Amino acid sequence: MNLLEELTFGSNGLIPAIIQDAQDNEVLMLAYMNKESLRMTLESGFTHFWSRSRKCLWKKGETSGNTQEVLAIFYDCDADTLLVKVRQKGPACHTGSRTCFYRQYLAGEQEP
Amino acid sequence: MNLLEELTFGSNGLIPAIIQDAQDNEVLMLAYMNKESLRMTLESGFTHFWSRSRKCLWKKGETSGNTQEVLAIFYDCDADTLLVKVRQKGPACHTGSRTCFYRQYLAGEQEP
Repeated sequence: MNLLEELTFGSNGLIPAIIQDAQDNEVLMLAYMNKESLRMTLESGFTHFWSRSRKCLWKKGETSGNTQEVLAIFYDCDADTLLVKVRQKGPACHTGSRTCFYRQYLAGEQEP
Repeated sequence: MNLLEELTFGSNGLIPAIIQDAQDNEVLMLAYMNKESLRMTLESGFTHFWSRSRKCLWKKGETSGNTQEVLAIFYDCDADTLLVKVRQKGPACHTGSRTCFYRQYLAGEQEP
């Protein structure tokens, strides 16, 4: 199977990738890949993304050392989202949190 | 906290929402919400999305009965992705699979 041809990239050339801890299934982050970053991910075994704000390829953990080793890759029924199970080194979030989803909305605090 | 004002919606007015089973942490699907569908989600306690293909609001399980009861909502460091923990009724995927991520890319089958 040629994964790159199997997938549907958005009009911006990107596909969202959900990054999940393979050990406890915690969702760590969501980032975007273009074909080149997916190719680099497959070839290296470590997650690479396209930064929409900086407009460049980046390897997760390139500067922080908090890399993500890819253990499995799934894609959804529409083939337009990836689910990547990883072995996360250190915290996934640049804030130092283990996951980027460290903030919870609590219903009742205030009406939406 | 006003969740709707806290979040950053994309230029298309949408925010991706990762839907995760609250019990076993399996990732079930990714879909998109606009402000209106998020409002309906918060008010009803069941997930509502914006369909990019059909260009309409939809309640998950509206026709299939496979609804998603919202148990918790998290948002990420950039406030541009939601993580919704749900109690899923029946399979989440329209194919009948429990999760939309039922296809796995196996490295080595063929080079990317």
